[in-house]
Amino acid sequence: MSPGRPAWRQVTVVVRPFRAEAVLQAITDKLGPEGLSGCVVREVKGYSRQKGYLDRYLGGEYSMAFLPKVEISLAVPADWVDEVSERAVRAARTGRIGDGKVFVVPTIWEGEF
Amino acid sequence: MSPGRPAWRQVTVVVRPFRAEAVLQAITDKLGPEGLSGCVVREVKGYSRQKGYLDRYLGGEYSMAFLPKVEISLAVPADWVDEVSERAVRAARTGRIGDGKVFVVPTIWEGEF
Amino acid sequence: MSPGRPAWRQVTVVVRPFRAEAVLQAITDKLGPEGLSGCVVREVKGYSRQKGYLDRYLGGEYSMAFLPKVEISLAVPADWVDEVSERAVRAARTGRIGDGKVFVVPTIWEGEF
Repeated sequence: MSPGRPAWRQVTVVVRPFRAEAVLQAITDKLGPEGLSGCVVREVKGYSRQKGYLDRYLGGEYSMAFLPKVEISLAVPADWVDEVSERAVRAARTGRIGDGKVFVVPTIWEGEF
Repeated sequence: MSPGRPAWRQVTVVVRPFRAEAVLQAITDKLGPEGLSGCVVREVKGYSRQKGYLDRYLGGEYSMAFLPKVEISLAVPADWVDEVSERAVRAARTGRIGDGKVFVVPTIWEGEF
Repeated sequence: MSPGRPAWRQVTVVVRPFRAEAVLQAITDKLGPEGLSGCVVREVKGYSRQKGYLDRYLGGEYSMAFLPKVEISLAVPADWVDEVSERAVRAARTGRIGDGKVFVVPTIWEGEF
């Protein structure tokens, strides 16, 4: 990292597809459109514990299912990670199990070109 | 990271698609279904050196090919990274070139919501 | 990390799809085909600020768009990160806005099997 350059983090949020637009908007409200520029959006599957009738039907203790999710990764100044994560979680939450996930990873360098 | 909170790692394994189910099961056997909850599964391509007749046919020293792979990322307590990685490798291995890849990355924060 | 083992980094570049082949070739020229082996290629969307007539048409200050991108991740010895990143950027650059993005992340462990 260059001296004097603020530390950055790589923030990745995994959310329900129909909430992705709201999450991107919530992050834009904090970072501005420039801050979202270079953000990466991936269509992925979440592999989650399923609750409900399948448990009894299959006789097992749990069953796992693949559910479509949208994964959003972007670089965020370290000081803003908490607020960006909280905004994303607030926009993504429906109150049901499997709403989403946040990963914050240190970056050594990040840049747009 | 909060004081007293155990360190977590982001473990990513890239495997042949037909081994993905076995890898997820092998990890579940260690972490339990809760541990796999929030895991992210991506369909990706591996870009790998190909061996065989193409080398001679094209007259080059090697040829590269894109092969379908499944990439699985999950957060794992630092103490369990070795065992989880070993289980995943064991379940993914076929003995041929290009079986897979493991990346372990530090996380600053991770959470499910 | 094992003692004596050189530090590795996880380098991720996001580029325009039609530049992906050139970027992979530019990295291979430095690392050799073995160095690219195990590299992961993902089809993703970039979420970018759009400039042009849409601004006026929609009456807003900006508009955002999803554009197809190719995301390439690979493990690189720490000493080679700068050169690999520079080669990738050079091969990916078209001079227009939204050419690409580089993330460099520390790895605790990485391995192929």
